[in-house]
Amino acid sequence: MQPLALTMGDPAGIGGELSLRAWLALRQTGVTFVALDDPARLQRLAAAMGLAVPVRVVGNAAESGLVFHSALPVLPVTLAVDALPGKPDGLNAKAVVASIEQATKLALAGDVGGVVTNPINKAALYQAGFAYPGHTEFLAALTGATGQQIMMLASPMLRVVPVTVHASLRDSIAMLTTDMIVAAARTTAAALRRDFGIAAPRLAIAGLNPHAGEQGALGTEETTIVQPAIDTLRAEGIDVSGPWPPDTMFTAAARARYDVAICMYHDQALIPLKTLDMDHGVNVTLGLPIVRTSPDHGTAFDIAGKGVADATSLLAAIELASALAASRAAARTTL
Amino acid sequence: MQPLALTMGDPAGIGGELSLRAWLALRQTGVTFVALDDPARLQRLAAAMGLAVPVRVVGNAAESGLVFHSALPVLPVTLAVDALPGKPDGLNAKAVVASIEQATKLALAGDVGGVVTNPINKAALYQAGFAYPGHTEFLAALTGATGQQIMMLASPMLRVVPVTVHASLRDSIAMLTTDMIVAAARTTAAALRRDFGIAAPRLAIAGLNPHAGEQGALGTEETTIVQPAIDTLRAEGIDVSGPWPPDTMFTAAARARYDVAICMYHDQALIPLKTLDMDHGVNVTLGLPIVRTSPDHGTAFDIAGKGVADATSLLAAIELASALAASRAAARTTL
Repeated sequence: MQPLALTMGDPAGIGGELSLRAWLALRQTGVTFVALDDPARLQRLAAAMGLAVPVRVVGNAAESGLVFHSALPVLPVTLAVDALPGKPDGLNAKAVVASIEQATKLALAGDVGGVVTNPINKAALYQAGFAYPGHTEFLAALTGATGQQIMMLASPMLRVVPVTVHASLRDSIAMLTTDMIVAAARTTAAALRRDFGIAAPRLAIAGLNPHAGEQGALGTEETTIVQPAIDTLRAEGIDVSGPWPPDTMFTAAARARYDVAICMYHDQALIPLKTLDMDHGVNVTLGLPIVRTSPDHGTAFDIAGKGVADATSLLAAIELASALAASRAAARTTL
Repeated sequence: MQPLALTMGDPAGIGGELSLRAWLALRQTGVTFVALDDPARLQRLAAAMGLAVPVRVVGNAAESGLVFHSALPVLPVTLAVDALPGKPDGLNAKAVVASIEQATKLALAGDVGGVVTNPINKAALYQAGFAYPGHTEFLAALTGATGQQIMMLASPMLRVVPVTVHASLRDSIAMLTTDMIVAAARTTAAALRRDFGIAAPRLAIAGLNPHAGEQGALGTEETTIVQPAIDTLRAEGIDVSGPWPPDTMFTAAARARYDVAICMYHDQALIPLKTLDMDHGVNVTLGLPIVRTSPDHGTAFDIAGKGVADATSLLAAIELASALAASRAAARTTL
């Protein structure tokens, strides 16, 4: 198995601490990664937190697999100024961006199995001239991705894909179209086949309204927008069901009948995911030529440097990226 | 403890079967009820299902407490025609309505501790001239309730109150006002004090938008509608918090910090409730002069008469009504 590339994230956030804790948790497991980070700052961080993590600079990704059991391998990305916990500094934005760029290059070259990104602070990057709305758009540009990128949230209990994401609820309803649902479902079905090893993925399509509109009494979008998407997808041979009443489609019995829920808006997807399992949610970007996951939380400036950050979601992100990379590798071998 | 009054519901639905199963489950527990139902049809149903439930006609509610350990007590409400499972019949609408009326009268007179309603089929009742949108409005009229009635959904893990309920998502957003949130929260706080025995109830108020609007980037209703409601309620001495990001407010850690979540729309409330615990959700009507609960499901015509209906939610509704009635009785004694 190839190592994964783990980015620095904002060095004023909890990313560095999480990287150290992830190494401690994974060193004996067979899953390996290389950090694209500043080795000196990781060493200081480990000392400050009392974490016994030897940091070793490596020359390339392949080497990192060999040293991983005895030290945290790092491909150096040097910070411009010391990172202060909780205080993002625009002077370090270049290093934050370089870490993502180098990780992506390694993945495109096939030197790592995929990229796991620590959380960034967009405001700090924007001030330094970063021109992308976020990680996903930047990765799409770096990888020359065509088509649409889709965010999937995955936990051991549930996978969800919100068709509309970061917009007000009112705008989410206004922007929802049949084409968006079809595109999201197609990308999702393809990713479940290729990366998740699910030969015939079952997609449950949510309704938008209470009781999925109750035959028009509680809204018409199920008839005008969702059902046509289901018809189109079914005609393409994709196993879709719905539109499901949103409130009953996330029970244990309902979840057993599908592999992913295609949701109409952010909270329809995120409420059940986080309610069922707050800690193990992983963000997976579908529709990129590389494997990319990230933990389902932000920089957490408020607790950075305090030694209390929980690495559960980053660990889940690394483990899922490893599984996705293995699935892609197996598919390539089969071909 | 007084018995509760349990209504017939639509006799073509699963209500009768659930009443029989509820008696089997509760006969030794100290919680008692009297069914407002047709004794002959309950007897036939028990025989058809192979349930060993002796049915006993009683003359009044007090008597039912005495016979409950040995037989299901029934105050007779005679059906016009035999009820066929799955086939609602307008000719029986009068009996369905009479059952609700008589149960309510018993509760108003103090002869029962509260009313538990089996599911009705509104379409069948409308055809027979029933002029109310549902149970709740009918009960409000029967009891001469002033003010607003509020639906609370309660399970052992979570209590939720949706401020908007049975409208499309689009209309729910359009109709949401500060006054509605304030009124719902006031009624809820009063009910938690009086009926749930919570001296200083903590209300968590949800935002409407993803991330609770993220300082206006993802919607403005948190600022223009929700926050003013919070300010008003706080000025009245009610313990409110929010507006909370909807996706993280239903985790176990978050739930430990409040007694009820005031939600902006149906699925924001119902998705977490049903995802956490599909079977034990109970519908409680707040703002009535009587205690009233109901199971969180419908008539289930598709499985009526097949012997497979699950009485878990009705049992939870009866047990919760019993606890609410006890709390009211204790409050009266204290006064």
